[in-house]
Amino acid sequence: MTLILALDFGGTKLAAGMVNVGSREWLGYERRLSPAKANASTDLEIMRSLIYSLLQGTKPAAIGVSFGGPVNASTGTVQLSHHVAGWENIPLKHLLEDEFGVPVGVDNDANVAALGEHRFGAGQGYDSLFYITVSTGVGGGWILNGKPWRGAGGMAGEIGHMVVDPAGPVCLCGKRGCVERLASGPYMAQNAREILENILPGRQGGEILRGLVRDDLTLLTGQLVSEAATAGDNLAKQVLHKAAWALGVGVGNVANLMNPQRFVLGGGVTKAGEDFWQVMQQVARETALPEVDFEIVPAALGDDAPLWGAVALTLI
Amino acid sequence: MTLILALDFGGTKLAAGMVNVGSREWLGYERRLSPAKANASTDLEIMRSLIYSLLQGTKPAAIGVSFGGPVNASTGTVQLSHHVAGWENIPLKHLLEDEFGVPVGVDNDANVAALGEHRFGAGQGYDSLFYITVSTGVGGGWILNGKPWRGAGGMAGEIGHMVVDPAGPVCLCGKRGCVERLASGPYMAQNAREILENILPGRQGGEILRGLVRDDLTLLTGQLVSEAATAGDNLAKQVLHKAAWALGVGVGNVANLMNPQRFVLGGGVTKAGEDFWQVMQQVARETALPEVDFEIVPAALGDDAPLWGAVALTLI
Repeated sequence: MTLILALDFGGTKLAAGMVNVGSREWLGYERRLSPAKANASTDLEIMRSLIYSLLQGTKPAAIGVSFGGPVNASTGTVQLSHHVAGWENIPLKHLLEDEFGVPVGVDNDANVAALGEHRFGAGQGYDSLFYITVSTGVGGGWILNGKPWRGAGGMAGEIGHMVVDPAGPVCLCGKRGCVERLASGPYMAQNAREILENILPGRQGGEILRGLVRDDLTLLTGQLVSEAATAGDNLAKQVLHKAAWALGVGVGNVANLMNPQRFVLGGGVTKAGEDFWQVMQQVARETALPEVDFEIVPAALGDDAPLWGAVALTLI
Repeated sequence: MTLILALDFGGTKLAAGMVNVGSREWLGYERRLSPAKANASTDLEIMRSLIYSLLQGTKPAAIGVSFGGPVNASTGTVQLSHHVAGWENIPLKHLLEDEFGVPVGVDNDANVAALGEHRFGAGQGYDSLFYITVSTGVGGGWILNGKPWRGAGGMAGEIGHMVVDPAGPVCLCGKRGCVERLASGPYMAQNAREILENILPGRQGGEILRGLVRDDLTLLTGQLVSEAATAGDNLAKQVLHKAAWALGVGVGNVANLMNPQRFVLGGGVTKAGEDFWQVMQQVARETALPEVDFEIVPAALGDDAPLWGAVALTLI
């Protein structure tokens, strides 16, 4: 039996799983939320306790790591975390190799999830695919010729900051109308809030959405926008359709540029329902040239995609 | 000596060159304009006469072919030409292999030019690059891991139909604001013409551009727009800057998505001068995330890029 240890530094949660090569059942699995004032040291300490609790004295053949932030995959050095302080230039691969004496592979969560879906999920049998996660941010990971494509500087996959509407709202990155600015959960919530705040007195709109947060617009989330849209709220539908449109233009542009066989879409926003998928699929189809074929399918691995991807990372 | 024969079916012209492997000097080179009513048969007949005139009874080790239109590179079958009738499903590789008894490689001009620049031109030493040609159309070709990336269906590289301005003018493909719709030579001419036609009587603008065509707006070309812009015509500058902006957004989006080391830009429009390059470079830099590094350089092989690429095609 070849034992693989998979680790997921997720920004808000930490998870670890242990599996035998060839099996799709975790021998052991542990998960913790990061504490409120997490930093790299507390993250590493918690992860260590998960690891020792799983291993119980056994030694894995390899360790695969998914990290929620930019990573130099060739050296295994974390560049930083946007969620947790103190991760600047941490040589995670070397730290783990020194402590556990086995080969370690580290990559960012989007690349790792792409690899996981390719090996174990919705991308099985597809040699070229683009994985997109639409959640608190929008990111992506490439599989080309059956292998990860990370780009010359490890930055490939940033579909979230593709500009699709240069006259659109300003994104955190400074540009207007990025895919992420229109399609991420937090930005969908912000877009809904801004429309609701600007409804003139006496005019109607967004009643279902308002009801879900009892008129406290600070409580709006992307998920509530999706729920209100499903329940027939026209204002929520408008926000959700704009998100689906942005993602569809992004997918269509990528199809024209790279012509992958498959797009695999994961993350909370992609669970927004049939209407979201229908708009996104149609816009993607209209944006791509007629001769450019592709399929768009939902991710299959769910929340465990980074862990299964980390397993796959040890196998390439 | 290993003799290579390179052929370029360019849509409006036909060219053939013969070279020894390792040399950068043509042993022989011939070029003809396509006749007014060209079709696949006349193109093939002219090309055959160029070939026999070059070969003079010698036999090359291989033949590389650049074709100005979609090609199935794995079978070497031309799908069609947008310029010349009768090229639908012509098995060009098999025709040439049958006639000359040597291995033949066929690919579309953008892929072939990318390979040429990679092997012999501005992309030497760069393992990942995107070649873009901006001319009567806008197309592109990929080199990833030192090899052509053609896409699952051979359609990769279509940056010309990336949407960068969804509120922009309608492209021949049916969408609004494609890169090609804003940056190709003929569309730049059309954009200038439309602005000139809508200038109110008594209002000024575009005098230099008008002067270049003696007020006959049907004579406008992309090149004249560039010339007028260089000469200080503000209306022409506006059109040229919009083209440079569109191309810059396209390049920046591609940088975020694929993170190649280098962009190599060829085609007539990219000779529009410093101002065009400056705007395009700045917009590309602003569109890409700060962490995404890349260079944009002019193509080095000029009009012979397809022929040198065809040589390179026989060497992979």
